Amino acid sequence: MPSRYETYAVILALAGSLGSSTVSQAQPAAPAAPVTYTADGKLVFPKDYRTWVYLSTGMDMAYVEGADPKQHLFDTVFVDPTSYAGFLKTGTWPDKTIMVLEVRKGQGRGSINKVGQFQTARVGAEVHVKDVARFKSGWAFFPMTGEASEALPQTSQCNVCHEQHAAVDTTFVQFYPTLLPRAREMKTLSAAYLAEEKTAGGAR
Amino acid sequence: MPSRYETYAVILALAGSLGSSTVSQAQPAAPAAPVTYTADGKLVFPKDYRTWVYLSTGMDMAYVEGADPKQHLFDTVFVDPTSYAGFLKTGTWPDKTIMVLEVRKGQGRGSINKVGQFQTARVGAEVHVKDVARFKSGWAFFPMTGEASEALPQTSQCNVCHEQHAAVDTTFVQFYPTLLPRAREMKTLSAAYLAEEKTAGGAR
Repeated sequence: MPSRYETYAVILALAGSLGSSTVSQAQPAAPAAPVTYTADGKLVFPKDYRTWVYLSTGMDMAYVEGADPKQHLFDTVFVDPTSYAGFLKTGTWPDKTIMVLEVRKGQGRGSINKVGQFQTARVGAEVHVKDVARFKSGWAFFPMTGEASEALPQTSQCNVCHEQHAAVDTTFVQFYPTLLPRAREMKTLSAAYLAEEKTAGGAR
Repeated sequence: MPSRYETYAVILALAGSLGSSTVSQAQPAAPAAPVTYTADGKLVFPKDYRTWVYLSTGMDMAYVEGADPKQHLFDTVFVDPTSYAGFLKTGTWPDKTIMVLEVRKGQGRGSINKVGQFQTARVGAEVHVKDVARFKSGWAFFPMTGEASEALPQTSQCNVCHEQHAAVDTTFVQFYPTLLPRAREMKTLSAAYLAEEKTAGGAR
């Protein structure tokens, strides 16, 4: 039997609320925020991630079978602009890549909307960092519950699932529609993902 | 009886496919692309909009009652970075603001995903431009079906609906969760939206 992989949306929702949405006061189009740690090794949450490069948004995504949830959740991924430019050149991520997964509640009826869902309050965020000198696997996850957070263990479900199933360098490029063609072109898709495409089917 | 407002997602899907997703080769964090017209007055489609500032994504949003569609559609809105910075300062949009609505297909099962939806091919895009010297209402919509497109008439359903229901300056800021609090703070919410919040309910 395969291991049970919890959906990251659920994990993040359980990690606790970051409070209601706030407006980033950072200047747009600024240079990428560096990967910054506190003296005791926590990652400092990058406050300006909403002006980074958008990769994609999913709704209610889960990696185990189940019914649609009653509370819809959107998950959106941003990456720092410098690393995005690096990916376009090479088809993979440079060291010090920093990605932010943001989870927001969905709302159905509201204003003139009658069908479908739009996004409202942020309920969680997680950061994924490539830092080959610091992490054994090269990457670490930081569920963000405050100003700075400790990395999940390298054996966490996030790490294991990403290492086993991610299309490029432990990242789910199969769900980022503008990057997947570039990875295919640069032949940087993982052997595991290429095998999975043939059996489970990939992103069309 | 109220007029029947078609959902923009449907309008865009019918407007024809722009083909599969392509990787933007634009440098991220570049200055905003100017609003550019051809000699015969068509708007030139801004190719680098995917590196602009992300506002939000909805799924299957529609402004008339109806069942959930069989083909799920995501709609995502980007704005040029200069105008985004202007909004953060003032709570409304400067002249020459340019926003892009991108519509992509949703896919359920694929790779390890079992529940919910992720985004795949782009099926349409529409641009919304503020140019007070050029358009009677100050704004115009351009359904993008090629390299450059003509504006919809100022009496189009898009124009009418946005003028009647948009929270800020004919734009649906009620669906952009990081901008709505700023508009409230700067008291730039339209009288129509404030009235609608009390009756139909706003974004929570």
